[in-house]
Amino acid sequence: MNPDITRERQHATFDVEKLTHILDGGPEKTRRRREIESMVFSDPDFKEEDPNFLSRSERYDQAVKKSAQMILKLREYGIADPDEIYCYKNCVHPDRPEPLDLHLGMFLPTLLNQATPEQMDRFFMPAWNLEIIGTYAQTEMGHGTHLRGLETTATYDPATQEFVLNSPTISSIKWWPGGLGKTSNHAIVLAQLYTQGNFYGLHAFIVPIRDMDTHIPLPGIVVGDIGPKFGFNEVDNGYLKLENVRIPRDNMLMKYAKVEPDGTYLKPPSAKLTYGTMVFIRSMIVGESARALSKSCTIAIRYSSVRHQSEIRPGDPEPQILDYQAQQYKLFPLLAMAYAFSFVGQYMRRTYNRISGDITQGDFSELPELHALSAGLKAFTTWATNSAIEVCRMSCGGHGYSRSSGLPDIYVEFTPTCTYEGENTVMMLQTARYLLKSYRQAKAGQQLSGIVSYLNEPKHQRVQPQPVAARPTVVDINDLASLVEVYKQRAAILVDLAAKSIEQELQQRKSQEDAWNNSAIDLVRASDAHCHYVVVKLFTDKLVEVGDTAIHSVMSSLALLYALHGITKNSGDFLQAGLLNVPQVLQISARIKELLSQLRPNAVALVDAFDIHDKKLNSVLGRYDGNVYENLFEWARRSPLNSTEVSQICLFDGWQPTKNNN
Amino acid sequence: MNPDITRERQHATFDVEKLTHILDGGPEKTRRRREIESMVFSDPDFKEEDPNFLSRSERYDQAVKKSAQMILKLREYGIADPDEIYCYKNCVHPDRPEPLDLHLGMFLPTLLNQATPEQMDRFFMPAWNLEIIGTYAQTEMGHGTHLRGLETTATYDPATQEFVLNSPTISSIKWWPGGLGKTSNHAIVLAQLYTQGNFYGLHAFIVPIRDMDTHIPLPGIVVGDIGPKFGFNEVDNGYLKLENVRIPRDNMLMKYAKVEPDGTYLKPPSAKLTYGTMVFIRSMIVGESARALSKSCTIAIRYSSVRHQSEIRPGDPEPQILDYQAQQYKLFPLLAMAYAFSFVGQYMRRTYNRISGDITQGDFSELPELHALSAGLKAFTTWATNSAIEVCRMSCGGHGYSRSSGLPDIYVEFTPTCTYEGENTVMMLQTARYLLKSYRQAKAGQQLSGIVSYLNEPKHQRVQPQPVAARPTVVDINDLASLVEVYKQRAAILVDLAAKSIEQELQQRKSQEDAWNNSAIDLVRASDAHCHYVVVKLFTDKLVEVGDTAIHSVMSSLALLYALHGITKNSGDFLQAGLLNVPQVLQISARIKELLSQLRPNAVALVDAFDIHDKKLNSVLGRYDGNVYENLFEWARRSPLNSTEVSQICLFDGWQPTKNNN
Repeated sequence: MNPDITRERQHATFDVEKLTHILDGGPEKTRRRREIESMVFSDPDFKEEDPNFLSRSERYDQAVKKSAQMILKLREYGIADPDEIYCYKNCVHPDRPEPLDLHLGMFLPTLLNQATPEQMDRFFMPAWNLEIIGTYAQTEMGHGTHLRGLETTATYDPATQEFVLNSPTISSIKWWPGGLGKTSNHAIVLAQLYTQGNFYGLHAFIVPIRDMDTHIPLPGIVVGDIGPKFGFNEVDNGYLKLENVRIPRDNMLMKYAKVEPDGTYLKPPSAKLTYGTMVFIRSMIVGESARALSKSCTIAIRYSSVRHQSEIRPGDPEPQILDYQAQQYKLFPLLAMAYAFSFVGQYMRRTYNRISGDITQGDFSELPELHALSAGLKAFTTWATNSAIEVCRMSCGGHGYSRSSGLPDIYVEFTPTCTYEGENTVMMLQTARYLLKSYRQAKAGQQLSGIVSYLNEPKHQRVQPQPVAARPTVVDINDLASLVEVYKQRAAILVDLAAKSIEQELQQRKSQEDAWNNSAIDLVRASDAHCHYVVVKLFTDKLVEVGDTAIHSVMSSLALLYALHGITKNSGDFLQAGLLNVPQVLQISARIKELLSQLRPNAVALVDAFDIHDKKLNSVLGRYDGNVYENLFEWARRSPLNSTEVSQICLFDGWQPTKNNN
Repeated sequence: MNPDITRERQHATFDVEKLTHILDGGPEKTRRRREIESMVFSDPDFKEEDPNFLSRSERYDQAVKKSAQMILKLREYGIADPDEIYCYKNCVHPDRPEPLDLHLGMFLPTLLNQATPEQMDRFFMPAWNLEIIGTYAQTEMGHGTHLRGLETTATYDPATQEFVLNSPTISSIKWWPGGLGKTSNHAIVLAQLYTQGNFYGLHAFIVPIRDMDTHIPLPGIVVGDIGPKFGFNEVDNGYLKLENVRIPRDNMLMKYAKVEPDGTYLKPPSAKLTYGTMVFIRSMIVGESARALSKSCTIAIRYSSVRHQSEIRPGDPEPQILDYQAQQYKLFPLLAMAYAFSFVGQYMRRTYNRISGDITQGDFSELPELHALSAGLKAFTTWATNSAIEVCRMSCGGHGYSRSSGLPDIYVEFTPTCTYEGENTVMMLQTARYLLKSYRQAKAGQQLSGIVSYLNEPKHQRVQPQPVAARPTVVDINDLASLVEVYKQRAAILVDLAAKSIEQELQQRKSQEDAWNNSAIDLVRASDAHCHYVVVKLFTDKLVEVGDTAIHSVMSSLALLYALHGITKNSGDFLQAGLLNVPQVLQISARIKELLSQLRPNAVALVDAFDIHDKKLNSVLGRYDGNVYENLFEWARRSPLNSTEVSQICLFDGWQPTKNNN
């Protein structure tokens, strides 16, 4: 154990294990998580070659082998709880996406939700047994977030009782589905339905794409891998071109909408039934943000406690880089954010579970709010995390750039969350649409409930923000409740500002749609402020649940740092709206410095509490024992370029042009 | 040619070619650049396999082959001007680092600057002829930016007239030098000199590391590749452990400092002589920021003009995504920044050339200012560019994540500039040191000249920023000179604030060093504001040189956008200092929207003017002809995973666990 990191741990003021329980949701959850981790990490079948030293094809092969083993073992050990499956999977493929992700995460659940009993018999069990391997093919080369734009067609032919599927253009080729390129033999294909000469919009069809024995693509199917990406090296994201592919009528998922043998279309009872999955996945991504950020902070903070560099006082030994204020200012606000997002992730999961219970009972009343919240928070947390990972990486100096740090991988695997499951700007605009609708309802006298209820409060119905000095200031910058209040008011004012922008555009005779587009900057800003408020509020709310005094104290400092740091980064908003005055903004800067010093002794303990196993962290810099340098050297020696002492290319004839020219 | 992109070009209001000349520095420079580009791109010896489809070892091998060819051809064509060599090299390895970078960029120049005539004979010509291949080994595993901390030792042994080099600890192993791992047979090693029992600090030694014929490492040398990184796949960044390695006395670079045969040390005439290279490289990095950003903007803006998505008005065809205000707001400020940094890069290069002329004449007077400026601007431009590349990538949606977009590569090759040649936070603090020193001189009544002369102006000697409303406001938000003025005042106020923070710390009986460290946040902020001012000023200054009315008009809009966007992103600073009032901040937001609309018709023309050859851009999304989708499909089909229709791993025994279990 590195003596620096040992000393750090001795200085912690709270019980790390207890904080871990809070993050896991109780001691029993922690125990079971560790049990699963040790099950996987001690299993020789899951031993892997370091992917950093493999080619992409080798990484794919290794991942497929492990996935097949995983399915076997999940069954063998009787692990069936979705959370536990998720935990097991994230140990087998340490936080890396894998070829079966869409099979497990989209193909099977979509069958569960939308297949008829007959289809369940025909597809679900074979899929559960990995005879059928499926994916979910929605996105096309030319069409992503905007589903109505998808071009793939499914035309019903009553003569043969088949659907004929086609990719009518290049841009309609299905593009991106994970596992589609080489792994899957079936795909759930989203296509625009035509029957009896009428158009009925997007529906889901089960399309066999490869022969069940030879795995050769079936006639009319052009399928393959879309090529290397920034990350996702284990995954064969694929393309699929359909050329008059015929499937039987009963391969359309017909639990809700139906096409009868003669081609008659029966519409689904509610359009909201397929809406839940999307909300669920976006809610889950908030938790993924927290995990990626926790890992990054763990690596950067542990490394900063063992790395010594430069000098503060001449003649003194080189200090730990964590002693530099500039380093603390980079990392501690991100650590605070990691805790904030962890608690927001817990909240989203709880809320989803509660509301999905209601949905099962046919009560959709809370779904729109959750939909708006999950869209905005997905964007807010992934954008913030995306930048934060890179700040963590660069805070490790040159070694952060080595793949041994683990940080490049965390970044490339995480960054697509900003784009998939709804592009972030589009998500922010969806939340803004809900906020504006609520705002108008409030203005029309309707009493709002839920998280947007602040739009009711009359004091926000300002015509125009006024000069700062004219406004009385009542904020106590050390009081979290008071800070939640200013975040709330900021959100209200920015929603108001966006609404005003739209009104102005309309007054200039713009259409509703152009007015909306010409106010997009304001709308995104309003959504962002709304989400920021929600995060500050949920972090503050969480403190009430923390009984342990020592933990409560350090969590309060983190929450305060999160809130105050957010204010300094957006101080223009608060000053502009007169919510804070200039002396307060200066006080906040001073207070942040105090909080950094205050948190310094607990920094390592706070990342230890995330309790991320070394095998999941996969980082030489972030090792629990802090023994970085010797292991960096060991790791480097395994580089494939070192497999021979002399690289043959350096001896080849052309290398020494002078000799060659003689 | 894609019809959308053709239409964009038809709508441009200025002559693209003329703007290209301005960027290149004149029509003759443009002509010659294109000549070199066509020389390389039409040369069959430089045809390459798409590196995206190669393993790292294959990428290294391909790069070495091309580098050897390159050296031959540079000589064959008589290209000797450093700028032209740089241009040629950046076509051979399209903006990718390569194994010979340090040989050409550090080994040869260091010999030129610091070798004796005898050493020139012995090393320079063989190195020029690639018999000797060298690198520059400074950074160690445990020591980067802080040079005094380096641990490698060179102890003089007068008995044999040799230096004995050692890596006394694991952390002293040389780590990171490009080309060190497999390519080089010599290294210039930076080591702490000991002779006659005395310590004389860091000096440079030429150390043979591999046998000239067999390329096998010499006795006492442990050398290899440090393993895969985020990028730099072509480069064998290496490690070097020295175990009692003996080199002759005259292998120390002795043009300035000397060790005599008996071990007597003679110190160099001036410590500033080796200072220039560092300043030069940092100045060059500003230009690299501009290039990376120009490429990213070219890709994102061209793609945004051919990509159609969603709808603004229901029923209308899907609009080009460049028509969305949110997309314009992401990209146009970055486009403005690309132009800003291009002009700053030109300025830095000109200034360096002027000052290095003075230095040759023994006049070092301007060096400290240039040193401070290059440090800060290196940090300011690389940080901004680093984030901007990722904004460009994500603005391309999912396809930005594909390596075919070229954007992941631009990012991973660019991002180390934030760390190397001086870690950015350290750079900002160096600039802050100069600003604070100047500030104190000004306060002491000394008249400052140069770029910090604003610190003289008495009106900035404020004790405390005052509430906004109390201050008269004189800024015309449409007048660039007026905006330069507020940026200047902001910088002055933040320097003042940082100085005050240090004073306060000192009053609390902190040592000078602790006071500095406890004010790091304020110091970095002051440097950042100073650099921001310099960039706005230089962009504005550049406009005077632009004679063409149409180009002047569009450049003025870009400069205005750059300045106003910077204000909105930092509006707290301007409000806090009373430099702008709330109505002005609101006006600025409205004005930015107008500028976005105004720039929209010229967006594609403005990136065309960067004139980046498709072979350098290396992006399916950014192709000049805009034919994205068909080429994306073509590119994907070449993915190595598609080399066989059926991936064998998907047929292996373990894949179908059920069948296996039967």
